[in-house]
Amino acid sequence: MSTTAGAAPAPRARVGRPRAQGPVADGLAPRDGVLAAAAELFTRHGYGATTTRAIAERAGLRQASMYHYFAGKEDILAALLEGTVRPSLDLARALVAHPSATAEARLWALCRADVALLCGGPHNLGALYLLPEVAAERFAAFHRVRAELKSSYRELLAATDAAAAVPAAELELRADLVFGLIEGVILIRRQDPDPSAPALAVAAADGALRLSGTPEPVLAAAAAQGAALLDTLRAG
Amino acid sequence: MSTTAGAAPAPRARVGRPRAQGPVADGLAPRDGVLAAAAELFTRHGYGATTTRAIAERAGLRQASMYHYFAGKEDILAALLEGTVRPSLDLARALVAHPSATAEARLWALCRADVALLCGGPHNLGALYLLPEVAAERFAAFHRVRAELKSSYRELLAATDAAAAVPAAELELRADLVFGLIEGVILIRRQDPDPSAPALAVAAADGALRLSGTPEPVLAAAAAQGAALLDTLRAG
Repeated sequence: MSTTAGAAPAPRARVGRPRAQGPVADGLAPRDGVLAAAAELFTRHGYGATTTRAIAERAGLRQASMYHYFAGKEDILAALLEGTVRPSLDLARALVAHPSATAEARLWALCRADVALLCGGPHNLGALYLLPEVAAERFAAFHRVRAELKSSYRELLAATDAAAAVPAAELELRADLVFGLIEGVILIRRQDPDPSAPALAVAAADGALRLSGTPEPVLAAAAAQGAALLDTLRAG
Repeated sequence: MSTTAGAAPAPRARVGRPRAQGPVADGLAPRDGVLAAAAELFTRHGYGATTTRAIAERAGLRQASMYHYFAGKEDILAALLEGTVRPSLDLARALVAHPSATAEARLWALCRADVALLCGGPHNLGALYLLPEVAAERFAAFHRVRAELKSSYRELLAATDAAAAVPAAELELRADLVFGLIEGVILIRRQDPDPSAPALAVAAADGALRLSGTPEPVLAAAAAQGAALLDTLRAG
């Protein structure tokens, strides 16, 4: 599928160079304006139904200028998808390397931050995970980052006290379920943006520990330590 | 958006009547063949990219014959979506009206059966839930059935022993999360069909009770009772 159909430069467009004048969506830098416009159009009208021309128009750019930032529609989708997992993977790596806190507290912190990321933006980008187009090789980087993020979940889960009593195959299923619970907020999210995102993030993090078999008193301590840990990592 | 574009009858097609002869996908009745073909094409190539012509071809029907069964592409999508929630709602109603079992056992049974339904078919139809097109009024029946199903989850959850100690707002969030955990298997499912679906269904049902705050000994009893209850309801 060509994503450049209809991409012939308009008269006087300067191919490969950003447009110097003219409005850019919401006062964003041009690249971010393209991403914001595409996020809105992909989630509102569908990926297949959105043209690069429509994205450029919504972003207030000439189509030729947009190609200065992105090779095509797939490239824009890949950037949006990676943006939904990269910050959580960065946090997960910092948490895995932060063994002074309990595994329960670190798992709680990862869950809360990940839900906040998935539900906090103006559009439900997680809805794009299930596009058949995303199975293509072009999106391998997204799948790799998402798989690494899931591995971090599994690693933290396996380090909890409750995991010691759980057979390996069952632990693998629990890791699937914890990751599914967190990503499942994509299916819960009701509005763009969702004003209940912070409460949902805390409830989901608590829920992930319950799902892991963590007893209530340990959970309460982990939630307090996890929230403090997030504050520390953000200040650092 | 017109879904009948290109629907002009082929020569000798008898509009509005099913084709009596010729192959139907996988030996299914024509209507089921159309649904099976559409399920494959929507999940493999995308809803927007699939034409009614392609569905008819895959189902081994003339396009005009397909219109005997479905008014258009939206109508086919609506039937597929309703098929992912209607059997679970029927079961949920039977379970809600079956107070001889504990709420924990009934919730467990609903979760296991719902995951089996969502993961058991040859295609991941749940992936279609997040299509922007599904927000349209045409899909109100699907949204109503899904909302009723979610209410049944909430009702069973609220009747568990663990719920008695949970404030109403928190219980609402937990119902969201339990429902999200179950539907979240859409995001976990790896293959079409997924051979691990039965194990995942049991793990998800156990997980839903843990998420609800049900202690392990109660959970073990509820799982045994819930499995027996499913056998009884199926035999009845």
